[in-house]
Amino acid sequence: MSERYDRGLAILREHFGDRADALIENVGAVSPDFARINVEFPFGELYAREGLDQTQRELCALAGLTCLGHALPQLKLHVIGALQCGATEAQVLEVIIQMIAYAGFPAATNALLAAGEAINTWRAERSAEA
Amino acid sequence: MSERYDRGLAILREHFGDRADALIENVGAVSPDFARINVEFPFGELYAREGLDQTQRELCALAGLTCLGHALPQLKLHVIGALQCGATEAQVLEVIIQMIAYAGFPAATNALLAAGEAINTWRAERSAEA
Amino acid sequence: MSERYDRGLAILREHFGDRADALIENVGAVSPDFARINVEFPFGELYAREGLDQTQRELCALAGLTCLGHALPQLKLHVIGALQCGATEAQVLEVIIQMIAYAGFPAATNALLAAGEAINTWRAERSAEA
Amino acid sequence: MSERYDRGLAILREHFGDRADALIENVGAVSPDFARINVEFPFGELYAREGLDQTQRELCALAGLTCLGHALPQLKLHVIGALQCGATEAQVLEVIIQMIAYAGFPAATNALLAAGEAINTWRAERSAEA
Amino acid sequence: MSERYDRGLAILREHFGDRADALIENVGAVSPDFARINVEFPFGELYAREGLDQTQRELCALAGLTCLGHALPQLKLHVIGALQCGATEAQVLEVIIQMIAYAGFPAATNALLAAGEAINTWRAERSAEA
Amino acid sequence: MSERYDRGLAILREHFGDRADALIENVGAVSPDFARINVEFPFGELYAREGLDQTQRELCALAGLTCLGHALPQLKLHVIGALQCGATEAQVLEVIIQMIAYAGFPAATNALLAAGEAINTWRAERSAEA
Repeated sequence: MSERYDRGLAILREHFGDRADALIENVGAVSPDFARINVEFPFGELYAREGLDQTQRELCALAGLTCLGHALPQLKLHVIGALQCGATEAQVLEVIIQMIAYAGFPAATNALLAAGEAINTWRAERSAEA
Repeated sequence: MSERYDRGLAILREHFGDRADALIENVGAVSPDFARINVEFPFGELYAREGLDQTQRELCALAGLTCLGHALPQLKLHVIGALQCGATEAQVLEVIIQMIAYAGFPAATNALLAAGEAINTWRAERSAEA
Repeated sequence: MSERYDRGLAILREHFGDRADALIENVGAVSPDFARINVEFPFGELYAREGLDQTQRELCALAGLTCLGHALPQLKLHVIGALQCGATEAQVLEVIIQMIAYAGFPAATNALLAAGEAINTWRAERSAEA
Repeated sequence: MSERYDRGLAILREHFGDRADALIENVGAVSPDFARINVEFPFGELYAREGLDQTQRELCALAGLTCLGHALPQLKLHVIGALQCGATEAQVLEVIIQMIAYAGFPAATNALLAAGEAINTWRAERSAEA
Repeated sequence: MSERYDRGLAILREHFGDRADALIENVGAVSPDFARINVEFPFGELYAREGLDQTQRELCALAGLTCLGHALPQLKLHVIGALQCGATEAQVLEVIIQMIAYAGFPAATNALLAAGEAINTWRAERSAEA
Repeated sequence: MSERYDRGLAILREHFGDRADALIENVGAVSPDFARINVEFPFGELYAREGLDQTQRELCALAGLTCLGHALPQLKLHVIGALQCGATEAQVLEVIIQMIAYAGFPAATNALLAAGEAINTWRAERSAEA
């Protein structure tokens, strides 16, 4: 695999832990090329750039995903990513609350409920580890 | 006017300078109620909340507005807002580059070109002030 | 709570019955602030305005939600709201059929099927009450 | 032309006056088939249906078009259509204000400003006729 | 029923087999008019046109549905339609991979996973027939 | 520059002629990195893939861009690209007409009018060359 792939995989695992490998496996079962591109380009190239730290990137990802409206699986994943990168639960919710202004209530409400599920999963995993 | 209005107006002016008053005037010429709500709710209520600082809020706004795709006037305004709140030009562009992953190239390209215009305006104003 | 909250809660219950409290509880379990804002702003402020009656507002809500495409839980809720406010089943479906022109068939079809579920729920509840 | 075409053309002219023929001409200059379909299907078929009166349909159109976000030329046209069908200026603005909740502020603000232009055009034409 | 209906039904069955009748039945259970329009207009009128063959139309449908983001049930159906009209599995996936550029990763990933399910269904049915 | 860049630039020029260099220059004036990524990833990587020929890719791009609704500058460019890659004017319009079903009339109408402008530009350039 390419250097971009290795870099992307490292960032994916840093943000999402084992979920990174599950994502690659699920997508790769349909199209290995899509899975490879998904590692190399957004994570190996975009997230690997300087200029914003990974916590800022995750909060911006939550803002963008909330506004898309149709991206709840990705939003749940990036809630975990944001928490894993050091954002607080309050910051995660705060970004979604701010997005009410841009995305409207339906998109923001669906994002909030999805974030609630992801936060519960995160808490359960942390509690099991403790 | 309400306390929410005063708080919102203060935040609007802090982020956008004279553009805040121009926005209120333009919108208010069509609907004074819409203009009032636009000050009171997103700025007097959402942006007035704790949990994220105003620079983070502006970067998240840029992320969300890029993903909406149809919000270029607002995106230009929030580029000014981000710079006014202390974000660097590089951070503004970096958020838009990251959003390629979520919004796709057309939305991100249109956002980038709009941001370029706003940054030029900002530079010209700062240079005129100096 | 504020006057806006009380007014919003009254409108919510008038439109959605017990579902209003369930919505507030579900959203509030993740973020009490989001739940409060959801009562105060769209219902306590926007729906409390004059100029359109509540039946017209619910039909317009259905039109807008159909065009968003990603708002099926909210669409189901507002189908109940429209019927509760005096719209007929035929009017509810007619709005969605008209939106084919603006939203395209996929968004309109998904809205229609969601509306069908909500109408069945509504009928079952009315029949149980009788 | 078909019966659907004649019916659609009559409804288009009733809602939009001379703008109906201008629309057909502009679209027809690129594709006569698209122009014909645009008359026959949304207007000759959907708007010709019973169940909602033409004023209600125009208000629902404004709701939907505001939520699409990318449909400002169509929104301006339907503002004229709504006024022509008997809606008041206040109702037109009220629908857009309500859509803040669903479409978010950027889409609603852009719709409001476009509606303001259409209302000014409408007023100027009425004043010239008087 | 009209000539348009018969033509549309024939095209629907050619693309989707028994699923065509199931779709009409599901939609028709909520609104017989919507179901009729769904046969007559997109299939009896648009898909019946010359200028593109049915395989090209199905690939373009996949491109458009991927970019909508909120149309996964329709996307699954058109994956079957594309395969039924002679497109290869590789072409179906290739269109979705290309759309990463326009729709962004979340919409493209959700489309890819939905397409994977549809392809598995298609394979299972073909294998059961053999 | 990378091999991906060279491959992407060659494809860009093959599809869009001098417009390729103008695009890179305009985007690069705001962000050289965005311009490079825009060459390397969608064109150097996605369009360079096998499985669909370049004419099919351009028709799918038109389908997707029509459904996005907010991508008229890109749609005009890809109309030129489609014609340059051997698609006929009739095929270009036919894709947009088909997308009425998925994107709705406003998005399809705006795409059609933008395509009409691009076709006129194309004809004028061809006529000037003759």
